[in-house]
Amino acid sequence: MDKGSKVPLYLQLMEALIKQIGDERYHEHEKLPSERELCEIHDLSRITVRQALQELEREGYIYKLHGKGTFVAPKSFNQKLVKLYSFTEEMKKADKVPTTKVLSFNELAIDERLAMKMGLEPLEHVYKVIRLRLANHEPLMYETSYLPKKMFPHLTATDLVERPMYDVFQQDYQIGVTKAIERFSAASIRAEEAAYLNMNEEQPAMLIKRYAYFREQLIEYTISVARGDKFNYTVELT
Amino acid sequence: MDKGSKVPLYLQLMEALIKQIGDERYHEHEKLPSERELCEIHDLSRITVRQALQELEREGYIYKLHGKGTFVAPKSFNQKLVKLYSFTEEMKKADKVPTTKVLSFNELAIDERLAMKMGLEPLEHVYKVIRLRLANHEPLMYETSYLPKKMFPHLTATDLVERPMYDVFQQDYQIGVTKAIERFSAASIRAEEAAYLNMNEEQPAMLIKRYAYFREQLIEYTISVARGDKFNYTVELT
Repeated sequence: MDKGSKVPLYLQLMEALIKQIGDERYHEHEKLPSERELCEIHDLSRITVRQALQELEREGYIYKLHGKGTFVAPKSFNQKLVKLYSFTEEMKKADKVPTTKVLSFNELAIDERLAMKMGLEPLEHVYKVIRLRLANHEPLMYETSYLPKKMFPHLTATDLVERPMYDVFQQDYQIGVTKAIERFSAASIRAEEAAYLNMNEEQPAMLIKRYAYFREQLIEYTISVARGDKFNYTVELT
Repeated sequence: MDKGSKVPLYLQLMEALIKQIGDERYHEHEKLPSERELCEIHDLSRITVRQALQELEREGYIYKLHGKGTFVAPKSFNQKLVKLYSFTEEMKKADKVPTTKVLSFNELAIDERLAMKMGLEPLEHVYKVIRLRLANHEPLMYETSYLPKKMFPHLTATDLVERPMYDVFQQDYQIGVTKAIERFSAASIRAEEAAYLNMNEEQPAMLIKRYAYFREQLIEYTISVARGDKFNYTVELT
C-alpha cells in the first residue's frame, strides 16, 4: 500500500485483492484472511479494511458467512434480457455443464389464486414441478413450475430428468415458447431453498417469475429463486 | 376457515388476509396479529399460519421485522423495462409526489477502477452525488451518481435540489439520455443505506447500476439501492 498516494487506501487494498483473485492466488470459495489479518499484513486500520471488504462484497468478488469469515465468490453470470433464454443454453454458452434435479413432480387441482394468475379455471389440473438447476454440479437456481396438464397431457418426471423442459415441450408436443414475461424482485431466501442452494439464510436472492406463452396461451408459470451473488441481469433501454 | 374444503388452509388464510388488506381493514405499515394470535383467531395450527405468512411475505403483501412482528407492506411499484424511465416520471404516473434530498455533492478526481468503468481517464474530474429519492415523503431509493464534469461544467447541488437531474441536463446543457444500460442484482443493504431507507438490515435490496449515454458518450453512472419490498421490474422477451 502506498500511503502517500492520492488513491484512498481502501481502494488500493481492493485492487490488490482483486488482482490476487484474478491471478488465482485465491480460488473460488477459498477463505480470505480475516479483517484482523488483513490489517496486519497491509498495515491498515480496521475501518479501511472493512470498507474495502464491503465494496468487494457489493461488487460480487467476495461473500461473507456469518461467524465463518470472508470467501472468494465464484464469478457471476450476467444474463442479458434481450430475447428468450434458457438456463441450459446459457450455461452451455458459459462453458458450464448444466444439470437438473427434479425434486418433486405432482399433479394437482389448481387453487383459485394460482388459477387467476395463470388464466386457468379453478380446479383445472396442473403439474407442479420443483427443480434444482446446477452448473458444474454447483446449485444455482431453485425453480417451482406450474404447467397446465391440458397442454402436456402425458408429461412425466422422467421426461424432465432426461431432457431440458423446453426440449420436451417441443419434441413431444410441438409447443415452443413464443413470448415470456419475467418479473424480477429481491427477496430473502427460505430455509429449505437455502439448504438446496448452499446459501446462508442471510444472503439475498433474486426472485424471477416467468410467465411463458405459446402464442396467446400460458404454458408455464415458474418461480425461480436464483443465488443473488451468482446472477445479475442486464437490460438496454432506449 | 372451511376445514372441509379442498383449498388448503394456509391458502384460505392468505386469501382472508389479502382481502382484509385490500379492504383496508389493515393499513400500510400496520402491525398484523402475531402468529399465535392468528392461530387462535382462526383456529389453525402454527405451521399453517407460518406458511401463509411466508407466502404473503414472498408475494410482497407483508414484511417482517425481527423481534417486532409482521406488518402490512405498502403496495410495490412495478417498473416495466421497455424504454427509458425516470424516478420522477414514474412516481407521478403512480399518483405519488416525488421528492429528492441531496445528501452529498462533491467534485473529485476519479480513481482508476471507476475511470475504467466509465470510460474516462484516471484523475478526470467527476461529481459524486448521493441522493435520497422519496415518494409521498417515503424514502424508496438511495442513489450514488457519478457525472463527468466536462459534460456538466457548472453543475451545483442547488440545481439538483430544485430540478430533476435529467431536466437540468436538458435545460442547462442540452443533453438528453439517448440510451441506458441497467444491471440488476439482489444485494444486502448497508447500515447507512438501511437507516436512510427505513429498512432493517436483514431486508434485501435491489441494486441497479445505470450507465446512461448521450449518443456514444457516457454521461451518468448511477448505483441505485432500491427497497426490495417496494420495487419489481418486468421485462418481456420474445
